[in-house]
Amino acid sequence: MPKYVYRFSEGDKDQKDLLGGKGANLAEMTRLGLPVPPGFTITTDACRAYLADGAVPDELAVQVTTALREVEEELGRELGAPEDPLLVSVRSGAKFSMPGMMETVLNIGLNDSSVEGLAEVSGDARFAWDSYRRLIQMFGKTVLDIDGGHFSGALDAKKASRGVALDYELDVDALTELVEEYKAIVREQAGIDFPQDPRGQLDMATEAVFRSWNTERAHIYRRREKIPHDLGTAVNVCTMVFGNMGQTSGTGVCFTRDPSTGRSGVYGDYLVNAQGEDVVAGIRNTLSLADLESLDPESYKDLRAAMRKLETHYRDLCDIEFTIERGKLWLLQTRVGKRTAAAAFRVATQLVDERLITTDEALTRVTGDQLTQLMFPQFSTTGERDLLTKAMPASPGAAVGFIAFDNAEAIARAEAGESVILVRRETNPDDLPGMVAASGVLTARGGKTSHAAVVARGMGKTCVCGAEALEVDAAAKTVRVAGRDELLTSEDIIAIDGTTGEVFLGSVEVADSPVMTYLRRGLETALDSAGDIDNRELITSVDRLMRHADKVRRLAVRANADTPDDARHAIHRGAEGVGLCRTEHMFLGERKKFVQNLILASTDAEREAALAVLLPLQKDDFAQMMTTMNGKPMTVRLIDPPLHEFLPDLTELSVKVAVDREKGVLDPADESLLAVVRKSHEANPMLGLRGARLLLTMPGLIELQVRAIAEAAVERLRAGGDPRPEIMIPLIGSIRELQIARERAEAVLAEVGAESGYDLSFPIGCMIELPRAAVTSSHVAEEADFFSFGTNDLTQTTWGFSRDDVETSFVGHYIDEAIFGTSPFESIDVDGVGAMVRLGVEGGRSTKPGMKMGVCGEHGGDPDSIAFFHSVGIDYVSCSPFRVPVARLEAGRAAVLAPEPARQ
Amino acid sequence: MPKYVYRFSEGDKDQKDLLGGKGANLAEMTRLGLPVPPGFTITTDACRAYLADGAVPDELAVQVTTALREVEEELGRELGAPEDPLLVSVRSGAKFSMPGMMETVLNIGLNDSSVEGLAEVSGDARFAWDSYRRLIQMFGKTVLDIDGGHFSGALDAKKASRGVALDYELDVDALTELVEEYKAIVREQAGIDFPQDPRGQLDMATEAVFRSWNTERAHIYRRREKIPHDLGTAVNVCTMVFGNMGQTSGTGVCFTRDPSTGRSGVYGDYLVNAQGEDVVAGIRNTLSLADLESLDPESYKDLRAAMRKLETHYRDLCDIEFTIERGKLWLLQTRVGKRTAAAAFRVATQLVDERLITTDEALTRVTGDQLTQLMFPQFSTTGERDLLTKAMPASPGAAVGFIAFDNAEAIARAEAGESVILVRRETNPDDLPGMVAASGVLTARGGKTSHAAVVARGMGKTCVCGAEALEVDAAAKTVRVAGRDELLTSEDIIAIDGTTGEVFLGSVEVADSPVMTYLRRGLETALDSAGDIDNRELITSVDRLMRHADKVRRLAVRANADTPDDARHAIHRGAEGVGLCRTEHMFLGERKKFVQNLILASTDAEREAALAVLLPLQKDDFAQMMTTMNGKPMTVRLIDPPLHEFLPDLTELSVKVAVDREKGVLDPADESLLAVVRKSHEANPMLGLRGARLLLTMPGLIELQVRAIAEAAVERLRAGGDPRPEIMIPLIGSIRELQIARERAEAVLAEVGAESGYDLSFPIGCMIELPRAAVTSSHVAEEADFFSFGTNDLTQTTWGFSRDDVETSFVGHYIDEAIFGTSPFESIDVDGVGAMVRLGVEGGRSTKPGMKMGVCGEHGGDPDSIAFFHSVGIDYVSCSPFRVPVARLEAGRAAVLAPEPARQ
Repeated sequence: MPKYVYRFSEGDKDQKDLLGGKGANLAEMTRLGLPVPPGFTITTDACRAYLADGAVPDELAVQVTTALREVEEELGRELGAPEDPLLVSVRSGAKFSMPGMMETVLNIGLNDSSVEGLAEVSGDARFAWDSYRRLIQMFGKTVLDIDGGHFSGALDAKKASRGVALDYELDVDALTELVEEYKAIVREQAGIDFPQDPRGQLDMATEAVFRSWNTERAHIYRRREKIPHDLGTAVNVCTMVFGNMGQTSGTGVCFTRDPSTGRSGVYGDYLVNAQGEDVVAGIRNTLSLADLESLDPESYKDLRAAMRKLETHYRDLCDIEFTIERGKLWLLQTRVGKRTAAAAFRVATQLVDERLITTDEALTRVTGDQLTQLMFPQFSTTGERDLLTKAMPASPGAAVGFIAFDNAEAIARAEAGESVILVRRETNPDDLPGMVAASGVLTARGGKTSHAAVVARGMGKTCVCGAEALEVDAAAKTVRVAGRDELLTSEDIIAIDGTTGEVFLGSVEVADSPVMTYLRRGLETALDSAGDIDNRELITSVDRLMRHADKVRRLAVRANADTPDDARHAIHRGAEGVGLCRTEHMFLGERKKFVQNLILASTDAEREAALAVLLPLQKDDFAQMMTTMNGKPMTVRLIDPPLHEFLPDLTELSVKVAVDREKGVLDPADESLLAVVRKSHEANPMLGLRGARLLLTMPGLIELQVRAIAEAAVERLRAGGDPRPEIMIPLIGSIRELQIARERAEAVLAEVGAESGYDLSFPIGCMIELPRAAVTSSHVAEEADFFSFGTNDLTQTTWGFSRDDVETSFVGHYIDEAIFGTSPFESIDVDGVGAMVRLGVEGGRSTKPGMKMGVCGEHGGDPDSIAFFHSVGIDYVSCSPFRVPVARLEAGRAAVLAPEPARQ
Repeated sequence: MPKYVYRFSEGDKDQKDLLGGKGANLAEMTRLGLPVPPGFTITTDACRAYLADGAVPDELAVQVTTALREVEEELGRELGAPEDPLLVSVRSGAKFSMPGMMETVLNIGLNDSSVEGLAEVSGDARFAWDSYRRLIQMFGKTVLDIDGGHFSGALDAKKASRGVALDYELDVDALTELVEEYKAIVREQAGIDFPQDPRGQLDMATEAVFRSWNTERAHIYRRREKIPHDLGTAVNVCTMVFGNMGQTSGTGVCFTRDPSTGRSGVYGDYLVNAQGEDVVAGIRNTLSLADLESLDPESYKDLRAAMRKLETHYRDLCDIEFTIERGKLWLLQTRVGKRTAAAAFRVATQLVDERLITTDEALTRVTGDQLTQLMFPQFSTTGERDLLTKAMPASPGAAVGFIAFDNAEAIARAEAGESVILVRRETNPDDLPGMVAASGVLTARGGKTSHAAVVARGMGKTCVCGAEALEVDAAAKTVRVAGRDELLTSEDIIAIDGTTGEVFLGSVEVADSPVMTYLRRGLETALDSAGDIDNRELITSVDRLMRHADKVRRLAVRANADTPDDARHAIHRGAEGVGLCRTEHMFLGERKKFVQNLILASTDAEREAALAVLLPLQKDDFAQMMTTMNGKPMTVRLIDPPLHEFLPDLTELSVKVAVDREKGVLDPADESLLAVVRKSHEANPMLGLRGARLLLTMPGLIELQVRAIAEAAVERLRAGGDPRPEIMIPLIGSIRELQIARERAEAVLAEVGAESGYDLSFPIGCMIELPRAAVTSSHVAEEADFFSFGTNDLTQTTWGFSRDDVETSFVGHYIDEAIFGTSPFESIDVDGVGAMVRLGVEGGRSTKPGMKMGVCGEHGGDPDSIAFFHSVGIDYVSCSPFRVPVARLEAGRAAVLAPEPARQ
C-alpha cells in the first residue's frame, strides 16, 4: 500500500516532491522542535492517483483516519466533536508555490452542533459563530465553486441592516443569522446542504485541492512559470490555532531580512485579534514587529528565537507565518522567502559577510534572470496609470515614447530627439533600422520567439508583443484598441513595460538602472551616481558576485556581433571575443540591394560586379570590428542569407504583376523580376539553398568574403594591431562541404598572405546546426579547427519544425500538454537537441581531443541552457552583447553547481 | 617512395583499387601462367597524385623507366629502337569500366625511323606504315584532342584518290603519304610536331589517360553509374602483339557463355589479319569461334583451354580479348563479363548446376536492379524509330500511347480503351488519377526524385522525366519539341522507354515480360505462356533464385499500400503484409474535398460533420484491405496530410482574387477561402503542422480513424476473418506525443471492443522520421509496440533540406563534387541518416529487446539500402507493391552477404 499520508513529525524539508513546499517545511519545523500545531500532509502521489483515476484512492481515506486519530489522541480532542471540537485547516501545497490553485479552508470541523461547543470552550460565542460563518464562506467558494459575491453581498447587507461598518462589529445574533443565510446560499447555489459531517468536510476539501491542480488558472500559471503539469499538489491538514481569540491573540507574517530592498534586519507585519485572512484582506492597518515586542515581549522573544533558528538552519532569508493564541506562539508556515532581484544580490553577499554561506553558494542564490531585471530601467510604481492592454512581456525594461508606425517615422523622430515606440502588426528584418531607432517595440501579433521578440532581446530593447487588443493600421497610421473609443495616432504617447507586458496610454515615469550603469561604466562611476545607500549596496553586491562568477567559470563568454557598434557594446559588457559575426546582417537596410543584385545576377559578369561592390564594404566592417576586438577572437560566419529574405515576396509580386497587367500599366522590370523570384522560390526556404550549399554553388562567394577578412586583417597588422579572425562555414552537413570550402578559403588566405607578407593561417571551423553534422562530427572534425553549435537551426531540424511556423500553430497547445516544458527555441531541449550537441562534442573530441567547442545560437544567453552547455564540456557561449553579463553570471553559477563537466 | 608502377607479374585480381580492373586482371592472368604480353601498370595512386598536384609525380618517371627496362630486357628489344623496335599500347583502366574515358593508344614507339625497323623485322612494309598511321591517328585524337574528322577525312580522300574502298586496300605508298598528311594535321591542329621520341609518346599518353578522368563525359558517366569521383584510373602499358601480320594472325573477343541470352556454350567473334580496333569498328564481318577452330585448331585449342581455366578460376562468365600473332595466342584482357539481366539469372543457375558455385553465391550474382529490368516490357529493337529526345529514365518499362494533357483526358481516353501517355510540365498529387489511367508518364521538368518519378516508380509505371526539349502547353494542348517543326497534339502517338529515357514519335513495338507474368501469375502459367526455351529457362532461373532468397532472408518484406487495389497487387508479388497504409492517400482525387472541408472547418460542428463524412469511407477501405490482408499484419498510419497539398495555392488564389476584384467580378467565396488559405499558409510546410502535431491539435481526428480501423476489424471478425491492423502515429518528436495519441487510440479501441465484444488490443507504434525521435528512441520505445523508420522525412531533417527544393538547386552540383555519391533520397545515406536509424534501433531495443523495427520510406525498395537495413537489424522493409519482388531478392542477397546483422 503506497504511503499517502505523512504526519508532520515524519517528513523533512528535502521531501518537497512528495509533501509539497509547505508540507516539507512544516515537517522540518516540527523536526527542529519549533511550535507547529499538530497535523499531517497528504502526498502529491495521492493527488496524481486522483487525477489519473478521477477518484480518491481507497487507501487514502484509511490513512487519513489513522493520522487524524493520532492527532486527536495527542490533543485529546476530536474533529468536530460537539464539545471542545478539534478544528483543522486544509491547505494546498505544491512543490512550487502556485497562486493559481485553491489554497485554504479554515475551521473545518465546525457544524451546527460543534459551533456551540466551540463557543462554550472558548467562552466567546461571537468568535465561534464568526468562525463558522468563515468556514461556510470559504468552503462555499473554494470547495463548492460558489461565486464569492453571494457571501460578501449577504455580509454587506447584514452590516448595513445593523448599521455597522466593519465585520467584527457584527454581534452573535447577526452572525447566527448570517450563518443561516450562508447555508441558504449554499443550498441554492450548490444544490446541497452545507455538509454537517466534519470528516465529510475534510474529504471534500481535500478533493477540491486535488481538483484545483487542473483549473485553467493553474494551467496558465504553470505555463508561464515553466512548472511541469504532472507534479500534482500535496494537501496539508493542520490543527487550527486562533489569532482571533481576543487581545492576547493575533497573527502575522515576518521575514528574517527585508525581501523588498534586501536590507538586513527583521521585517514583518502583525495584526491583533485576527486570523490570517484578515491580514491578506488588508482591512485593518497592521503593526510592525517592534509593536509586537512592546505588546507581548514573551511571544516576540520566542518569535525572534525561531527566526534566528530558521535562518541559521535554512541559511537563507526565511518567510514565516505565525499566530499567537492567547499568548502562545505557533508557527504555521515557513519557506525560503521570495525576494526582489535587488534583495537577492544584497542578501547573498550579506550572508557571505555573516559567514553563513560561502561566496560559491552566494553565486547560486542569484540568477541570470534576476540580473536581467536589474539591467533594465523600470517604471516607478507611484502615480496614475492608464492601462490600455496587457500582452506578452517579450524583452524587459520600460519605454515611453510617441507611436511610430514605420522605419522612416521612427528614424526621423528619433533623430529629431523624440523618443518613439515602434508599433507594428508584426516585424520582419526590414524593420531593423526602425527598431534600432525606437526606445521600444510593440507588436500586435507573435509570441516570445517572434521576430520582434528575438531581435529586441538581442538588442536589449524593451518589447511587448502579441497585443491582440490592438488593431494596427500602418497605412492610415492609427491604432484601435479593443473596448476603447479613441483612435491612437502618431501624436499619442504610450508606455510599455517589458517585464509585465503592460501597455499604458500617456507617459509614465521611468527610473534608471544603477546596475546597468555599473555594467556599462564600471564600479566607480556607478557608485558615484548611485544616489542612495540601497543602490550603492546593490551595486557592490552585484560587482562582488560578477567578479566571483568570472573567477570560477570555465565557460568563456563571447558575443554575437554583426556590426562595429555591436562589437563595442560587447566589449563593454565583458565579452571575451565575438562568437558569431553574421556577415549577411551587414547587408540589411539600405545595403540589401547589393545582396539582391548578387542573387539576381544571371551572368558571370553580373555576379562578379555584384561581388566587387560587396568586397570593400565587408572589408571596412571587418577592419573596424577587428580594431575593437584587438587581441580577442572574432568568429566570422561566411554569408548565410535565406534567399527569400532578400527578395520580394512571391505572392505580393505576383498579385502586383497580375493587377498591373489587368490595368494595362505593367512594368516590364516587374515582370522579369517576378520570373527570377519564381525561379528561386523555394517551397521550404529553411530547407533550401542556404549556408554551405549557397557558398559552394555560387562561384566567388567564399573567395570574396575570405578576401575581405584577410585584407582587413592585413590592414590591422600593418597598423600594429592583433586581429584574430576565425572563419566559420555555416550549415555543413558533410565533411566534404567543409573540405571544399576550407580549401577555397585557405587558397585566398595564402594568396593575400603572399601579397602582404603576413602569415594569415587563421582557424577555419564550421557550425554544427544539422543533425547530420552532429552525428558525423568525428569525420567533420578532421577538417575543422573548431565547432560552433547553431542551436536555433539544430532545434528546427532535430524537431522537424520551423520557428516561423510552429509558434502560432501548436507550441502553446504542446506546452499545455506537457510535450514541451517550455518552447525549445527559448531554452535548449536537453533530451533531443542537447543529445545532438553532446554527440557533436564527443565525436569532435574523439578525433581532436581538446578541440574548441562553442555555442552561438539564441540559447547561448539562456540561463538553463548555459548550465547544460557547461555540463557537456562546451568551451564558450556566444550571445547578444546585452546578455553577456547574464551569461557570465550563469557560467559562474554552472561552474559552482556542477564543477566537473564531462570532458574527454 | 610510393610504389607507382607494378609489373604484371607483381599484382593480382584483388588489387582493382590500385591497379584498376584491367590491370588487376592482366596480373591475375600472368599469375595463372596464361600467355599475356609483358608489361606493367601505373597505379591509381599515381593518377590521384597527378590530379591533386596538376603534374606527374617525379617518382613515376623513374619507376616507369625501371619497369620498361625490365620488359625490354625480357624481350631483348628496346622501345622505339630503329631496329626491331619494341612497341607498346597504353590503355586506361579504372576500378570500374568507364566508357567516358580515353581508352587506348596502340603502337607507341613508332616514329619516322623505327617504322623502317618494324618494316624490316616484320618483312611487311605495308603493315609497318599502317601501324604508324594508326598511331598518329589515335595519338592525335586521344592525346592531342584533335577532332577525329580530320584524320578520317584524309583517309577517305586517300582511298578515293587511289580508287579503293577499304582501308587495307591502301598500299605502302599511299600509307607513307598518309603518314605525312597526318603529321601535317597534327602540326596544324595541335601546334606541335608529332613527337618522335618514343618515351615522350609514352609519357604524353600516360598523362592524357590521367587527364581523361576529369572530362565532362567521364563525370557524367560516373554520376549516372554512382562511381565516386575520387578513385582515379590506372594506366596499363603492354607490349604490342599484332593480329594484323597476315593470314595466320587475327584478333577477337570471346565469352565463356552467351552474355546476351545466358545460353551455355562459348561465344565470340574473330577477325583475321586485323587489330582490335577493326573489330570494334565493324568494318568487316567477323567470324565465329567455330570458324577459328577450322582456321587455326592449335590456337583455338589454346584459347578454349584458357577460357576454361579462366572461368574455373573466376567462377563466372569471363569476357576475353585475344590476339593471334603469326599462330601464337596472346591474351590481352579478361574480366568477369558484363551480361544482360536475363543472362545474369541464367548463368547464375547454370553455374550452380555445374557445381562451380553454391546457390548462396548464385544469389549474389544477380541484383534487384536486374530483376527490375526483367519485370518491365521492353521495346523490341528492330524496326525504324523516330527519336524525339532523350531524358531522365525515371521508372523503367516501355509505354506507347496518345498524348494526354490532363487527368480528364487521360481518364476519358483510357476508359474508351485507348492507351495514353500523360504528358505534363511536371506532376503533383492532383495528377494521380491521370497517372493511374495512363500507360506512362512524361514530364518536361524534374529529376529522378521528382513527384512524377517517385510516384511512377511506386506504381511500377513507365516514366521519363526532365525532358527539357519539350515545351508543354497544357492549356493549348500542344507540345513543341526543340529543334523540330511539327507541333504535337492529342492526336499524336508517342513511345517512351523508361530504361533508356528515350522518347519516340509514333508507335514502337513492345515485347511482354515473361518474368512479370511469373511474378504475377506464378511459375506454371508463366512457363505455359513463355514461348521459347530462352524465356522458359529464364523463368526457371528467376524462380529458383527467388525461392532461395525467400528461404535465406531474415528481413520480411511488406508493401506500402494505400488502397484495396494496392493491397491485392502486393499479395500477388509476395508481400507478407502492409507496412504502410497512408490514410491521407485514400483522399486524393474526388475525395479530396472531404479533407479540405475538415481543414477549413471553423466550428466544432463543421469539423464533426466533416469527420462524420470521412468515417464510413475509411471504414470501407480498411475492411476491404483487411479482407485482402487476412492473417497478415497491416500497418495503418494515421492521417498525415501536408495541409498545403489539400488547399489551393496561396499565390494563385491571391492573384485570382486581386484580378477578379479589379475586374469587379470577385466571388465572395473566393475571398473567404483566401482568408483561410492565408491563415493556414506555412512558410515551410515540411516543418509545419503535420503528423502527430495535427493529430493532437485537431479534436476528433485520432478517434475518427481509430474507430474506422476498429469497426472495420470488427466487421471482418464477425465474418470469420483474421484482421491484423497495427496503428502507427506519424512524425513523433517526443514520447509525450505518442503517449497522448496512444491513450486516445486505446480509449477508442476499448470502446469499440466493449460495443462489439471483441478484443481489439491492436499494436500501436510510431514512425521514427525525426532526428529527435531517433535520438530519444529509448524513451519513445516505452510507449511503442513497434517502430517504423520513415527514411524520406528522416533524410530531409537529418540533412536539413527538402526534396522539393534541392533536386533542382544543388544536388547535381553536390554529386559532381562528391559530397553525395548519389542523391540521399535514392539510396540511404549510411553515415548520416543511417546513423540515425542505427540510434533508433539500438535505443528502442535497449528498452524493449526484440522490439519490431520496420522501414517504410522509399528506401525500403532500394537495393543498397536494403543491405544496410539488414545490417542494422531491421525486421522488415516496406516498399511499393511493384518493388516487393526486388526487395525479396535483395533481402536474400543481404542475408547471404552479411549473414549476422547486429542484434541486441
